[in-house]
Amino acid sequence: MAAKTLEPPYYAVIFTAKRKGEDEGYGATVARMQELASKSSGYLGVDHARDNEGFGITISYWKDEESISSWKKHEEHKQAQQNGKDKWYQYYSIKVCKVEREYSFTSIKS
Amino acid sequence: MAAKTLEPPYYAVIFTAKRKGEDEGYGATVARMQELASKSSGYLGVDHARDNEGFGITISYWKDEESISSWKKHEEHKQAQQNGKDKWYQYYSIKVCKVEREYSFTSIKS
Repeated sequence: MAAKTLEPPYYAVIFTAKRKGEDEGYGATVARMQELASKSSGYLGVDHARDNEGFGITISYWKDEESISSWKKHEEHKQAQQNGKDKWYQYYSIKVCKVEREYSFTSIKS
Repeated sequence: MAAKTLEPPYYAVIFTAKRKGEDEGYGATVARMQELASKSSGYLGVDHARDNEGFGITISYWKDEESISSWKKHEEHKQAQQNGKDKWYQYYSIKVCKVEREYSFTSIKS
């Protein structure tokens, strides 16, 4: 993830969500939102993992609150948010966080 | 997740990690750490998801920085951290964040 090399402080948006079963355009929209977000001002990167029961975590990283606000208001993104509520998610939670410090580890052993 | 009902500000520790293939006591340690963390002062909850390629995200939620620091120094947890470096992880990153605001959605449709 690109954010590995970032210097705090910056912002993280933690999106935790439980999906319903059907795709209903979900996969295509995720790919499109990824593409749009990556071009949005202040975008720094994303981490994503989903388990086999449909519970997923997506964390996007942003330079500041202004860049988060700008992405939230993007017209195509707003439509995707509405579809998320109407079709894709049983529930979700969004947490806006300021990353204050960070450290990482890479194994030298295989 | 318990943190759904929390009132910001509080803290989140984002742990993103790529595992190596073998278990080597990993599963048992995760269960034990979960148990210990949940009894640690200031613990508020946890979210976790891992994909099929061994990339996982664990986010633990804490009342304040002091509770994060206290859990980090727990003796059994320190041993687990060392095992993580020696045996379980190809790489990991830890981000300490202040959760500033939060909102959630629950579908009324099945």
